[in-house]
Amino acid sequence: MKDILKNRLLLLPQSEFDLRVSRIRTLMDSAGVKAVLIADNANLYYITGRVFAGFVYLPAEGQPIFFVRRPVELDGDGAVYIRKPEEITLSIGLNMPENIGLELDTLPYSSVMRLHKVFPGTEMLNASSVMRQARAVKTPHEIDMIRRSGLKHELVYSKIPKIFTPGMSDIELQVEIERISRLEGCLGQFRISGSSMELHMGNVLAGENADAPSPYDFAMGGAGNDPSLPVGADGTLITPGTTVMVDMNGNFDGYMTDMTRVFTPEAGYLSDLALKAHQCSIDIHRALTAMMKPGAKAKDLWEKAEEMVKEQNLHSYYMGHRQHAGFIGHGVGIEINELPVIAPRSRDVISEGNVIALEPKFVIPHVGAVGIENTYVVHSDRVECLTNSPEEIVHFDI
Amino acid sequence: MKDILKNRLLLLPQSEFDLRVSRIRTLMDSAGVKAVLIADNANLYYITGRVFAGFVYLPAEGQPIFFVRRPVELDGDGAVYIRKPEEITLSIGLNMPENIGLELDTLPYSSVMRLHKVFPGTEMLNASSVMRQARAVKTPHEIDMIRRSGLKHELVYSKIPKIFTPGMSDIELQVEIERISRLEGCLGQFRISGSSMELHMGNVLAGENADAPSPYDFAMGGAGNDPSLPVGADGTLITPGTTVMVDMNGNFDGYMTDMTRVFTPEAGYLSDLALKAHQCSIDIHRALTAMMKPGAKAKDLWEKAEEMVKEQNLHSYYMGHRQHAGFIGHGVGIEINELPVIAPRSRDVISEGNVIALEPKFVIPHVGAVGIENTYVVHSDRVECLTNSPEEIVHFDI
Repeated sequence: MKDILKNRLLLLPQSEFDLRVSRIRTLMDSAGVKAVLIADNANLYYITGRVFAGFVYLPAEGQPIFFVRRPVELDGDGAVYIRKPEEITLSIGLNMPENIGLELDTLPYSSVMRLHKVFPGTEMLNASSVMRQARAVKTPHEIDMIRRSGLKHELVYSKIPKIFTPGMSDIELQVEIERISRLEGCLGQFRISGSSMELHMGNVLAGENADAPSPYDFAMGGAGNDPSLPVGADGTLITPGTTVMVDMNGNFDGYMTDMTRVFTPEAGYLSDLALKAHQCSIDIHRALTAMMKPGAKAKDLWEKAEEMVKEQNLHSYYMGHRQHAGFIGHGVGIEINELPVIAPRSRDVISEGNVIALEPKFVIPHVGAVGIENTYVVHSDRVECLTNSPEEIVHFDI
Repeated sequence: MKDILKNRLLLLPQSEFDLRVSRIRTLMDSAGVKAVLIADNANLYYITGRVFAGFVYLPAEGQPIFFVRRPVELDGDGAVYIRKPEEITLSIGLNMPENIGLELDTLPYSSVMRLHKVFPGTEMLNASSVMRQARAVKTPHEIDMIRRSGLKHELVYSKIPKIFTPGMSDIELQVEIERISRLEGCLGQFRISGSSMELHMGNVLAGENADAPSPYDFAMGGAGNDPSLPVGADGTLITPGTTVMVDMNGNFDGYMTDMTRVFTPEAGYLSDLALKAHQCSIDIHRALTAMMKPGAKAKDLWEKAEEMVKEQNLHSYYMGHRQHAGFIGHGVGIEINELPVIAPRSRDVISEGNVIALEPKFVIPHVGAVGIENTYVVHSDRVECLTNSPEEIVHFDI
């Protein structure tokens, strides 16, 4: 890092930068946006390959300008140091765009109003959708980064059976997974677009706690250990006959995979209902990945899964028992909640380059959560799985 | 948690809730705000004692209404379940306020515009300042919670000398601190107001890495391990003659303390300059806490510290060497960046009930960061320290 930080602002290879900018510009053109000013960390990282405090000004035509507040000492690539956003006006000068796209869905209201004044008399448009759509279709470079996170993610999950000791609580197990994950290079940061969803490194749900409703818009809940963060592990002891669902952070290089697996202390103790539901989840993965071709409708995937669940009479356990989640899959990349969304009213259409986490899950009363989650890349001719840990319910080594 | 979650929406004792509401209303009155609609997780937690998905509607007079989207099954206290914010209008009906305060400094622009439509024809005001000011003055109940976090924080720091092994990198040490911290009940979540600052559980800075500039507005930087999260530990090996500055998450119950201590592998190897600067930090703590009485000006505290640093000729190392931070202290509570701010242009005035983290720090080239951070409560007649770990530079047990 040290050498890199002394170096250029732009950490992406030039060809990769050009590709991403060209995708953003195509979407800007469709939306009639003449220039965007980007401030959101995830989008700054997408455009430049680094997070910095500042802005990328990207006009429909001409050179982008990188406005930097911090860190000091970045150079090259036309970085312009500013102390406050009002100085942007000076640099743009007479080349004021006809309209300006700002990230209205993620930037605070006050920041948006201040940035809009930087472009006096200019119409303000929403750049959030442009950026979300650009990022939904990953470049080969991005897919490589997600693939690398997937390999580390698999390595961490392969160690989970060995770190369990009888008498452990869900929190104790989660802490040991956090440790091995961080030692393998997990960055810890779990990027979620928007500020209303919070989670520390992922979710470990043991037994009945899987059924505790949470306020956050994740597929599963859990009561959590404190009312200030009511999600996930709550201190439940891990016991035979119950499951532990592990859905932990796969961010090893700025891009993440999303993977869920189910563990149980001893063989032979899980109810037939739990085993049947787990198999149904695996079957849904097979059916949906067969359908997940460019042009397929996201809502058709959701409906196919719904149909399979109903055929098996598993509907009341599907995506929660006391509280049901409204989606079974989502795009993943720099953030955990990207496009497309696999949900009943989704208008998203599957595209080549989408990276999608599918997570059909069930909560079985008195047993816990079952089902798996994998992260897939949609190629023109096939679907590639990036999270290849064994899919069956794994017994802890004891 | 399970029993609590089945229970009432309002987790605060009624008298505590009444106290907080009355403080908010006093500030609303001063600002001419007739009603606020609160949506930010930190503020929802402040008002109710729990995070939920939804809104608190608090008029200047009359009953507050809790609008809940998730979790299911909350009841009591007049909780009204809604699927979307537009349903708020129905509940408020003919009692539309003259104006409505929304959290303009933290809610995304699009959310604000949608919420404002819930109050047709009503002037929109900024409720962020009201909530920030209310939360800056902690209640005795809140101080108790911060005090409890402080005790756990001290316990974790007391174990740090034992977990170091020679040859460790800063990241390896941080991971072991994360583990003991989590096992002692640290929630992991490190709440920062606004989305532009990111950090995973805190900052461990070894040797020269302390001088690497970061984009984030923290007192110290560090290159980090990846350009997607350029802050903190970067893999530097911990060696004799250099320091390790530990500034790790003290959030054990929704309220946090902020504490920094400095460690070094072996006695007798640190330069006189480093030792002198560390002592200067301790001296600044003594001088500033003596001044930190209700009515004192935040900027006078900053100036006093500046003066002491200059007297010792330590100015070029103060608050960073290559990049200097613009503040030396900040309020702390539910979030890490609360009021007041101890900075040169701060207009904040110290009040009884403020909880303030002071962090005069230095970066010494070739050695690393020195100085300490403590969290203090301002009482009417004294200042109480909530982070009482030994302040000298601690040698690891090896």
